[in-house]
Amino acid sequence: MTAINTPAAPCAPEDVTRVACIGAGVIGGGWVAHFLARGYDVTAWDPAPDAELKLRRLVDAAWPALTQLGLADGASRDRLTVAATLEEAVADAQFVQESAPEKLELKRDLLAQLDAAAPAGAVIASSTSGYPMTDMQTTAADPGRLVVGHPFNPPYLIPLVEVVGGERTAEHAVNWASRFYDVAGKSVITMKAEVPGFIANRLQEALWREALHMVANGEATVREIDDSITEGPGLRWAFMGPMLTFALAGGEGGMAHMLDHFGPSLKSPWTRLEAPELDKKLYDAVVEGCDEEAGERTIADLVAERDQGVIDVLRATGRLPQQRRAQRAAQHEKHQETA
Amino acid sequence: MTAINTPAAPCAPEDVTRVACIGAGVIGGGWVAHFLARGYDVTAWDPAPDAELKLRRLVDAAWPALTQLGLADGASRDRLTVAATLEEAVADAQFVQESAPEKLELKRDLLAQLDAAAPAGAVIASSTSGYPMTDMQTTAADPGRLVVGHPFNPPYLIPLVEVVGGERTAEHAVNWASRFYDVAGKSVITMKAEVPGFIANRLQEALWREALHMVANGEATVREIDDSITEGPGLRWAFMGPMLTFALAGGEGGMAHMLDHFGPSLKSPWTRLEAPELDKKLYDAVVEGCDEEAGERTIADLVAERDQGVIDVLRATGRLPQQRRAQRAAQHEKHQETA
Repeated sequence: MTAINTPAAPCAPEDVTRVACIGAGVIGGGWVAHFLARGYDVTAWDPAPDAELKLRRLVDAAWPALTQLGLADGASRDRLTVAATLEEAVADAQFVQESAPEKLELKRDLLAQLDAAAPAGAVIASSTSGYPMTDMQTTAADPGRLVVGHPFNPPYLIPLVEVVGGERTAEHAVNWASRFYDVAGKSVITMKAEVPGFIANRLQEALWREALHMVANGEATVREIDDSITEGPGLRWAFMGPMLTFALAGGEGGMAHMLDHFGPSLKSPWTRLEAPELDKKLYDAVVEGCDEEAGERTIADLVAERDQGVIDVLRATGRLPQQRRAQRAAQHEKHQETA
Repeated sequence: MTAINTPAAPCAPEDVTRVACIGAGVIGGGWVAHFLARGYDVTAWDPAPDAELKLRRLVDAAWPALTQLGLADGASRDRLTVAATLEEAVADAQFVQESAPEKLELKRDLLAQLDAAAPAGAVIASSTSGYPMTDMQTTAADPGRLVVGHPFNPPYLIPLVEVVGGERTAEHAVNWASRFYDVAGKSVITMKAEVPGFIANRLQEALWREALHMVANGEATVREIDDSITEGPGLRWAFMGPMLTFALAGGEGGMAHMLDHFGPSLKSPWTRLEAPELDKKLYDAVVEGCDEEAGERTIADLVAERDQGVIDVLRATGRLPQQRRAQRAAQHEKHQETA
């Protein structure tokens, strides 16, 4: 990122009370629901004629889930205003979230319009899952305040937001957005570089493509693929990521032992994706990264955490052995009644 | 699989009371713990001199978790016998689980020995994560009863077992093993063909390799990779697989709409793994597979299930917004005390 002479944001991330959401489809509407539940005043705009009706329905549908998640003090659906124009929507916004359809020209024009209409310095984030900000910020007068804030669907339930700037984004805008999302209850990853697919989508896309290859080659069915994840590694990934999980396969030696032991099998044809060369630099980065992530937790701590997590997740999703037995018995009974 | 004249198993999968576990390391010991918790008599054997002490420690360490999962009637650690020889261990076993180190020659010899010593027709399963049964069953007198029963670590917590035979395995042995694991409380996927890495490992290996590439290229840190999964797609994969989850991205149109809409972006450089050609055959297999998996559940049902699942998993793993706030406050307090 080059240093850009972008005005400071109208207020600190902690002091935001008013946000604007532009585009009110599944993603934009999901953002509206999230910000309302976190106690913000939200102004929304969408050019579709029936947008307000659909948006209010989406928020109503999400509200029971948001109530379960826990509403912030003062959170209310009454704090949603649907504006008649884009300009009105962002006129006094302290933060703008853009969630228009994934079309580059449309995004580019829309961001330039938002930049022209929003208060000086207010950060404008795009929900794009596909375009680098560098390609979208080309026509805005102040590209320095434009960032990507990429959510996961639905934005009111899945905590992750990936934040990254373009070549012409000011560093302070990236930092402001990251801090704001954090205050607003999201889990933020601030990326240093624009990578196609960001992080999570790159990882899940690799898995998804391998799955499609397997279906295409008759190696597994759709259901087998899904079951293999939900009954296997997916149980751990809900609370412990793939790297730390792999470190536990190394026993007390952790990731270093794991790489020493299983490094050679990286070259096995266990997937269609070629493995990178496991040179010293990569080896060190992975081992040190795992150590840093583990912090003060020993391998025994992590194993205990994983085990308890798996049990808690199984219980929460109704899959303890006795829960499964009860479900089968109920299904069997239902089956006999209808037979 | 060719038809093999393998004797029938000594009893039906439902009537098994005695199993033998050969190899008592992390995986073999995990199997011992699982079978004890499910109420079986277990006889174990391992050539290491301190094997019994380590095994009993592993079972003791796992027992609180197994108690939380729910013990079967009559389950007891007292029903574990450690045999002095391999022959003694399997002499009257109704099922044998082999979990020796991953060395092909060793596995091959061991399976032949087990085949020579076990009761006629008793199914013998290998925990191998790497070798096709076709390569391991070459020297056994009765290769027909040898199957792969590949668990996930730890076998007493992660339900998944992938079952597959080799070229010389009898079909009835594969079916018997699948049914037995099901009765014994595992989630079984019975594969029709030997695929390197089976299913779950192929999928997680694709994700893991993409992650390693990202670390090697400075695109993401270990912690960012882990956070992107646990705060993003991993939350859903604990209870809904990647295929059905993707179908929900298609809105009411489901997987068909999703493929129509996002099919072209399959070619985007969102991961290093090339996508397969999305021809009519693959398209139909994916759409029909999702429909079949969804069964009578509508898209709205699946969305509600996903949302409730995410909330339940967040709550169970202490990550509802108020839980996170309380944790931060506690950490802050602890920090101030030690400062």
